Amino acid sequence: MRKLFAFGLGTGTMNARGEWLEVFFPTPVLAPEAPAAFALAKSLGYESGNKALQLHAEHRTALKAMEPAFARFGNGARPLVAVFLETDAVPATVPEAYLKLHLLSHRLVKPHGVNLTGLFKLLPNVAWTSRGAVDPAELAELQLVARLEGKPLRVHSVDKFPQMIDYVVPSGVRIADGSRVRLGAYVGSGTTVMQEGLINFNAGTAGPNMVEGRVSAGIFVGSGSDLGGGSSTMGTLSGGGEIVVSVGKNCLIGANAGCGIPLGDDCTIEAGLYLTAATKVRVVTREGEVRGVVKARELSGKSGMLFRRNSQNGAVECLPNKGAIELNLELHANN
Amino acid sequence: MRKLFAFGLGTGTMNARGEWLEVFFPTPVLAPEAPAAFALAKSLGYESGNKALQLHAEHRTALKAMEPAFARFGNGARPLVAVFLETDAVPATVPEAYLKLHLLSHRLVKPHGVNLTGLFKLLPNVAWTSRGAVDPAELAELQLVARLEGKPLRVHSVDKFPQMIDYVVPSGVRIADGSRVRLGAYVGSGTTVMQEGLINFNAGTAGPNMVEGRVSAGIFVGSGSDLGGGSSTMGTLSGGGEIVVSVGKNCLIGANAGCGIPLGDDCTIEAGLYLTAATKVRVVTREGEVRGVVKARELSGKSGMLFRRNSQNGAVECLPNKGAIELNLELHANN
Amino acid sequence: MRKLFAFGLGTGTMNARGEWLEVFFPTPVLAPEAPAAFALAKSLGYESGNKALQLHAEHRTALKAMEPAFARFGNGARPLVAVFLETDAVPATVPEAYLKLHLLSHRLVKPHGVNLTGLFKLLPNVAWTSRGAVDPAELAELQLVARLEGKPLRVHSVDKFPQMIDYVVPSGVRIADGSRVRLGAYVGSGTTVMQEGLINFNAGTAGPNMVEGRVSAGIFVGSGSDLGGGSSTMGTLSGGGEIVVSVGKNCLIGANAGCGIPLGDDCTIEAGLYLTAATKVRVVTREGEVRGVVKARELSGKSGMLFRRNSQNGAVECLPNKGAIELNLELHANN
Repeated sequence: MRKLFAFGLGTGTMNARGEWLEVFFPTPVLAPEAPAAFALAKSLGYESGNKALQLHAEHRTALKAMEPAFARFGNGARPLVAVFLETDAVPATVPEAYLKLHLLSHRLVKPHGVNLTGLFKLLPNVAWTSRGAVDPAELAELQLVARLEGKPLRVHSVDKFPQMIDYVVPSGVRIADGSRVRLGAYVGSGTTVMQEGLINFNAGTAGPNMVEGRVSAGIFVGSGSDLGGGSSTMGTLSGGGEIVVSVGKNCLIGANAGCGIPLGDDCTIEAGLYLTAATKVRVVTREGEVRGVVKARELSGKSGMLFRRNSQNGAVECLPNKGAIELNLELHANN
Repeated sequence: MRKLFAFGLGTGTMNARGEWLEVFFPTPVLAPEAPAAFALAKSLGYESGNKALQLHAEHRTALKAMEPAFARFGNGARPLVAVFLETDAVPATVPEAYLKLHLLSHRLVKPHGVNLTGLFKLLPNVAWTSRGAVDPAELAELQLVARLEGKPLRVHSVDKFPQMIDYVVPSGVRIADGSRVRLGAYVGSGTTVMQEGLINFNAGTAGPNMVEGRVSAGIFVGSGSDLGGGSSTMGTLSGGGEIVVSVGKNCLIGANAGCGIPLGDDCTIEAGLYLTAATKVRVVTREGEVRGVVKARELSGKSGMLFRRNSQNGAVECLPNKGAIELNLELHANN
Repeated sequence: MRKLFAFGLGTGTMNARGEWLEVFFPTPVLAPEAPAAFALAKSLGYESGNKALQLHAEHRTALKAMEPAFARFGNGARPLVAVFLETDAVPATVPEAYLKLHLLSHRLVKPHGVNLTGLFKLLPNVAWTSRGAVDPAELAELQLVARLEGKPLRVHSVDKFPQMIDYVVPSGVRIADGSRVRLGAYVGSGTTVMQEGLINFNAGTAGPNMVEGRVSAGIFVGSGSDLGGGSSTMGTLSGGGEIVVSVGKNCLIGANAGCGIPLGDDCTIEAGLYLTAATKVRVVTREGEVRGVVKARELSGKSGMLFRRNSQNGAVECLPNKGAIELNLELHANN
């Protein structure tokens, strides 16, 4: 063993049956060649492949003799796990999945940069409470005892994903409501996520960005782009199509607007307009000449477009954006 | 007394004046014939009618001799209340109201299945904090003391309704932000409520459903239907009309869309289109022939409809949905 | 010194370097002539200008001899600060900024009623956690220790603004999700802010109001007006124009609608319609006669308008609202 794809030493929560509910990795590492990781591998008997190895009493003792970042793990009593990933294969265990989500939120990989196949099936549903992660099957009893003893217990959410900022707050960001950014989001430096903003896992922003709309799973937003309040980017998980939406640089998706196609740079979608891939769009020159009508998906990835709904005749139009180069479309016949 | 409409033994919070702020019922029962409930009734001197009876020291002692589910209530020091409902009458006390909200969230009754008349007037406004329920009139002093002592106090909300998942997490659900689902919501098994989803009291989903939009009070969503991100269902409480909206099976209300009429099964409202009851809709056949124009309310409850705004001429259209049977409308004259 | 513009005695949180992260003022005072404030000024050596003076051990002793509201501050060990503002100048310190935000949320001044110039630059970014305010630079270590010790730590948000209701809950309000109303919001009595509502700092409602939409920074909503679910008011901070939007009395901005111009009284924007300042609007009489077409900004501040998008031809129209006086517009030429 000379090099790993990824490595993490973490501490987490198990349910009453000893199954992992979640794992926290303070310092996930991508492509590690660190001697410390190798020392730990040796101590745990790791040789190759993708493994999530739980640490027991004897390993804690060994940890204490290692570098300070590891040694402090040796002192506690909470469950510990070391994840060694030789390759970026399909995650097979909860700790592996959590390590990959950490890689994203620590900005070590970008959305689509790590294999998350089968993630939903793998992750357990968890009640995220003021006392930490709880198996939903164990929650009712905990709630009853808390009530009878008069000790408050808040249940923040019941979900397969925790909120990112309980695991890591990357530098240079503001997130006005933590519950709106899942672990596995990539939030670029200089990004502000307002209360109405939302970033799903395996999605994110290059930074700087203002996010007051929803960045669906799988979507990446380029630097300088703003998502207005309540705006929507169409995901592929439910109700959406097969097109993977993305947003280029310096785009503006207006408040309450929506985007169902990948946008290039310097594009604007007017507030309140939902542009789906199937929307028929009238392409108009700067001088107001109609060049033709295309489905929005035909405009995928192009730059310098301004989309609006003509407020006099209701037609959805695409014009050259301010300062942008005129679109040179190879137009299909009107359809 | 042979049978009750509903029964609950609960523990809750009172303000400094001894008034109930909220009650937690771990195991509400509908139409109970349970001997245990009758034993408790006898112990409390309950004979008939709808009563919320507070339990005092002597009753706690009696509780300890009853079945385990009751006995454990006997040990604590928190306020206890037993609610006996002979009939589904207008709730007259806070514990009665809370029992009925529990019946909904425990899926023992469906939305509109229990009498909630006068609920808003009956329920006190409460500050829901990290130390439990607090009377808003007592909050400022608590906040000051907490600050001077350096003991954090979080105020989650100030509202007549608590969040459901602090009371019950029904089986088979995911709720990504607990604050968005009120106690009194009916969340069917297999329902996922995303961060942007919302379910009010006396409203809900049959399950399975994906809820990324807002289920207003009084609205029920059939199985297999999706509410896209930021979508709206029009309620009757404020700003809405008198029509009670509902959503049938296998419908899709697109992202940022809205619905102001009851929908049958297999209906779609395109992303971004807000269909109010007064929207004039052009009914179009599969072949594109315009059959006439009707107000959307005339289409209430019909199945297999696809609503969209024609992106070339701005007209709101209703077409047969994919795979659905052609609409056979008795059209009114154009209006 | 005879009179101050504002005064507050507060307790707050500092980071490891002794810099203020936030300050809580239980009883901010506008234009105080209170002898108590003057006694404290004397004790602290304050003479004139705008000053935020930290209290040290000797000042605590002096506090104990003052009136009860001050005396209780003397007993704790938490950092204390007294802010004396002789004038409403640009805030120069974090405690000054927080005092001004308190003035707004305590309803002592209305939005735009206090000088907040440079606020964003002045306020530090803070991690708002279940253990109080934390410097983001100090958070990762705190999170790791919390995890190793098995003591839960929730990070609610990372933002320059805290949520209002952790500082003050003004009388007569309901706020269904505290994270949606920032300190510095002015929430009038009788206002309900639903889960989907949002009120930014230096913005607010006269009350009574139903807020299920977003009140952007700088916007004030008159009494009796409703903001429907997911509705948007266009701010000036990002993506918006230069027009300061406001909403008069008894207006209704429908669900998922948007407003980019100041509205007078008794106006309605139909659900789902986003009216920007640049939207070309067809002005129509009660009898259906088209009077002309103007940009929406030309209608700024007028009363009795109903805006809708004609669902047959897609044109945005302005009609006289029910019961409102016919618009008497000095129309510009069609443009």
